[in-house]
Amino acid sequence: MNLHAKAQRIRALVLDIDGVLTDGRITYLGGEEAKSFHVRDGHGLKLAKRAGLRVGALSGRSCEANRRRAAELEFDFLYEGKKDKRAAFAELLAEQGLAAEECLAVGDDVVDLPVLRAAGIGVAVADAPAELDAACDFRTTLPGGHGAVRETVEWLLKETGRWQDVMQRYTS
Amino acid sequence: MNLHAKAQRIRALVLDIDGVLTDGRITYLGGEEAKSFHVRDGHGLKLAKRAGLRVGALSGRSCEANRRRAAELEFDFLYEGKKDKRAAFAELLAEQGLAAEECLAVGDDVVDLPVLRAAGIGVAVADAPAELDAACDFRTTLPGGHGAVRETVEWLLKETGRWQDVMQRYTS
Amino acid sequence: MNLHAKAQRIRALVLDIDGVLTDGRITYLGGEEAKSFHVRDGHGLKLAKRAGLRVGALSGRSCEANRRRAAELEFDFLYEGKKDKRAAFAELLAEQGLAAEECLAVGDDVVDLPVLRAAGIGVAVADAPAELDAACDFRTTLPGGHGAVRETVEWLLKETGRWQDVMQRYTS
Amino acid sequence: MNLHAKAQRIRALVLDIDGVLTDGRITYLGGEEAKSFHVRDGHGLKLAKRAGLRVGALSGRSCEANRRRAAELEFDFLYEGKKDKRAAFAELLAEQGLAAEECLAVGDDVVDLPVLRAAGIGVAVADAPAELDAACDFRTTLPGGHGAVRETVEWLLKETGRWQDVMQRYTS
Repeated sequence: MNLHAKAQRIRALVLDIDGVLTDGRITYLGGEEAKSFHVRDGHGLKLAKRAGLRVGALSGRSCEANRRRAAELEFDFLYEGKKDKRAAFAELLAEQGLAAEECLAVGDDVVDLPVLRAAGIGVAVADAPAELDAACDFRTTLPGGHGAVRETVEWLLKETGRWQDVMQRYTS
Repeated sequence: MNLHAKAQRIRALVLDIDGVLTDGRITYLGGEEAKSFHVRDGHGLKLAKRAGLRVGALSGRSCEANRRRAAELEFDFLYEGKKDKRAAFAELLAEQGLAAEECLAVGDDVVDLPVLRAAGIGVAVADAPAELDAACDFRTTLPGGHGAVRETVEWLLKETGRWQDVMQRYTS
Repeated sequence: MNLHAKAQRIRALVLDIDGVLTDGRITYLGGEEAKSFHVRDGHGLKLAKRAGLRVGALSGRSCEANRRRAAELEFDFLYEGKKDKRAAFAELLAEQGLAAEECLAVGDDVVDLPVLRAAGIGVAVADAPAELDAACDFRTTLPGGHGAVRETVEWLLKETGRWQDVMQRYTS
Repeated sequence: MNLHAKAQRIRALVLDIDGVLTDGRITYLGGEEAKSFHVRDGHGLKLAKRAGLRVGALSGRSCEANRRRAAELEFDFLYEGKKDKRAAFAELLAEQGLAAEECLAVGDDVVDLPVLRAAGIGVAVADAPAELDAACDFRTTLPGGHGAVRETVEWLLKETGRWQDVMQRYTS
């Protein structure tokens, strides 16, 4: 099935957090852990939700920063601390009532390979290692934490004919 | 009207914060939110004020970091938490006694489109999505949070013949 | 001895922290010091441990962030606050029961030269000063704090025929 | 007088902080202000002190992060909160018993112009605005906060024949 056809089936975005929604940096300060998210990724995800997509994250790590960002962007689901992403993705599909082919997954490292291969569409961020290419449908031009997710959303909404629609409130 | 003529009418700078005065990153640490502003943008805005321009921000988000930066740079106005930027810009014009054509607006994303189009001059930061180009007079060479605002101020002061004047205290 | 032969002897990774596991930035906030580590370097080190390598750090500085990162990644050793790296490396070899030629060292500055020269393999991060080249076997393509360590681990595991093995759980 | 001759007279480094010892970003978090310094700049300054140079900063801003970094690197002087850098530089010369031509100054913006012009050698960081070039002897290849100061120190020590000497403890 070609990529255009695959795109029409996507109902949910399944995002890795570190290296995808962030630039991969984990900052330690005293007893706390800080992470930086990008405002344009956040806005892209709002556009995705407005277009009817479900949006959530599947992360191998777990921290307060993840939960705050997920709450702020009104994620539909958040799976944290999942070292075995293959099993976690199966859990996610069952609990969220989604088929694998209805998910577009974005990853940045080899731990994401099982999810990227199983998902309807697999996307690697620009700065992901070369290993991911064989398992992914494409690579973004922007690196993780700097707009890779927004770029993916825009691609999907254009591919499925919904971009003009979500843009209307800004351009009319 | 050409850009040079438009520049002569500008009396105020209306700046987006995230992605314009910052590089778009929003850092979550425990219960707090951190943002990074650039020292050279700050200095550019001081030059703008010294040249008689009014300076302020219009942001969709709201946080303590914004208010501290606005206080430090003695912003003439700060509109925060404005999800509908079109309405907020109208509010700003009315309250500040400004006409739209007297404002130069700088933005980084599609939410800024209504303001960028309505303003006398619309400027997109270097790393803004392509969608903004049709609504903007130009794109800066520097990305948001890394001097895009200083570059814009310098352009405006040169275009209106005030740059040598504000530079005098440093070059004489 | 050529690099391929040297690689077969390596049993441990001896990493500098600032500029190697971080991008060199040290952030001061009030009374605390923050540092940013990269998620993909962390994952690379997990792959290294899974392949049977010992992993640890030798740093001229000392701070809580280092200790937290070392604990999270289950470092086998951590030598902090070692201004004289030559002496500290000798101490490390004795305490860890390692020979110098069994260590691959990664450094970013001239203070690391004695360790880089003494170690079985010396690696400079992409953004290290030119002075390090004469003492190193190679330079990574990625800068410190942005995947240089992961790149080094991948190189070593491929050079010693263990990469496919550690990848298997993701690719099968 | 050519640059080589000027270099022989230098006895002190007078550094701007924001944009020179940092990358220009000022991070606001709750009531505090954070700044990031680079480990290799720090090491370069230690080499400078070891070579007999005096080292210090002259900053328009003032914060705890500056004072901590100055203490850690054992700065010989720290002038903070100096909005008028011309006057502050005169104060510094008088109090430190230095002649202007004995100082090498590094700056990143037009506020530094009076100091850069008055100093024996003026250096602009790679990302400084073009305005600084006429007042400076050269521009570094590395941007502020990413090694520009270390690069400057290395240049000066090589130009004055002291580099091999300070390197000896690492290379012998």
